[in-house]
Amino acid sequence: MRFDVFTLFPGLIQPYLEESILQRARENGLLEVQVHDIRAWAPGKHHVTDEPPYGGGGGMVMKCEPVFAAVEAVLGAPPACPVILLSPQGRVFNQQAALELVRQPRLALLCGRYEGIDERIREHLVTDQISIGDYVLTGGELPALVLIDAVARLIPGVLGDPDGPFDDSHATGLLEYPHYTRPAEFRGWAVPEVLLSGNHAQIAAWRREQALLRTLHRRPDLLETAPLSEEDRRTLRRLKGEETPEDLQKTRKRRRRGAPDA
Amino acid sequence: MRFDVFTLFPGLIQPYLEESILQRARENGLLEVQVHDIRAWAPGKHHVTDEPPYGGGGGMVMKCEPVFAAVEAVLGAPPACPVILLSPQGRVFNQQAALELVRQPRLALLCGRYEGIDERIREHLVTDQISIGDYVLTGGELPALVLIDAVARLIPGVLGDPDGPFDDSHATGLLEYPHYTRPAEFRGWAVPEVLLSGNHAQIAAWRREQALLRTLHRRPDLLETAPLSEEDRRTLRRLKGEETPEDLQKTRKRRRRGAPDA
Repeated sequence: MRFDVFTLFPGLIQPYLEESILQRARENGLLEVQVHDIRAWAPGKHHVTDEPPYGGGGGMVMKCEPVFAAVEAVLGAPPACPVILLSPQGRVFNQQAALELVRQPRLALLCGRYEGIDERIREHLVTDQISIGDYVLTGGELPALVLIDAVARLIPGVLGDPDGPFDDSHATGLLEYPHYTRPAEFRGWAVPEVLLSGNHAQIAAWRREQALLRTLHRRPDLLETAPLSEEDRRTLRRLKGEETPEDLQKTRKRRRRGAPDA
Repeated sequence: MRFDVFTLFPGLIQPYLEESILQRARENGLLEVQVHDIRAWAPGKHHVTDEPPYGGGGGMVMKCEPVFAAVEAVLGAPPACPVILLSPQGRVFNQQAALELVRQPRLALLCGRYEGIDERIREHLVTDQISIGDYVLTGGELPALVLIDAVARLIPGVLGDPDGPFDDSHATGLLEYPHYTRPAEFRGWAVPEVLLSGNHAQIAAWRREQALLRTLHRRPDLLETAPLSEEDRRTLRRLKGEETPEDLQKTRKRRRRGAPDA
């Protein structure tokens, strides 16, 4: 998969690509990221890329010419792949959007100054607008890196553990269950016994219940869209103290069989 | 304002601090960011910072000892300021949260591996958990930078334009109105005439209406919480084609006075 990043600050993008899994993915030929300095396409001795807005008001606005010139020089006119503007006005990025974007062989990312970008760029060059959240940043560079990181780790082979991307918080539609590693006791705080039991069915059931429990407590909004089994729905009713008589009977039957509490 | 960032990848944090407004804010003494390498507090020759999870499953989990040691060495025990874990399980970051955080003189940011961090760190060291959005990243480093960027630009004096942070998308609770800069015509696409009129009241009214219009189209959810005037509500009803007879009468009166529409 290939990304072309258009920015006024290439120095903000490059270092992140040279560490950790993104660097490994690039070395393994799974990911290619080209960073293009928009300023190189700004005409004149001063390479002006922004000017004050028409109609007054503070701030500077990114100009049409250098942005159109940069994108069309690299991608042709019209551009040969989707051109995504990172903007607080875009659709809100989430894991579902990352799963859609990873299907594209090539994506162009345009990092605007968050203060303003000439509207004609938005209307006539950009094909999609994405916001990483409802907050104001200086520019689109961090959002571009967030998008690249979230999408790149879904490319098959990028993560060592092929199931990794599908267990994490949000990948299942739920928050993730708690993790513990050695030591078994730290400052008197012990690891839950079930995790030391070696009983894989019990461990899986405990983890699912914990994931449901913390999603219920911290992000109940996610339960509205998460894919839930009948078992999950029973667990949730129990966690909310809303067990029906049928639920209680099923729980009792399961316990008699020695199965774990789901 | 001071940030202490705890990370296994200091090389991912440092470059971003050395460009653009964050560098200027640091030079002007408005912002201090110290980056601490957790690995330096990991005991043993191999400085092990993560191990496989109890109970099995893929991925690695960040260990308690080096994280507690690093944070307590820098901030004391218990830590002298809020310790925020960047985590997909945290409360969702937004502009309101940025406005709250900028009131703190000092904040510690803990960058977890997103795959997992020992739950005892979450329970006994961390005082707050923040997520920058519902997607999965490799680690907390980009989220930490997003948080620093969003908060730092609210520190008085960091932005050249003191009103800058309050005009942007989300700062007003709405998406921002469109911006234009020179040239007045580009490839046949002209700047809206009102912006060239020099009539500041008309320009302000047009911008407010545009902000309402694009919020209505792209992010109607934001209208539920945005602070709206009676005038705004009338404009919205008109944009939705739901004008009441009273609205129409007010609009006619305004027009007779030569005032701009809404």
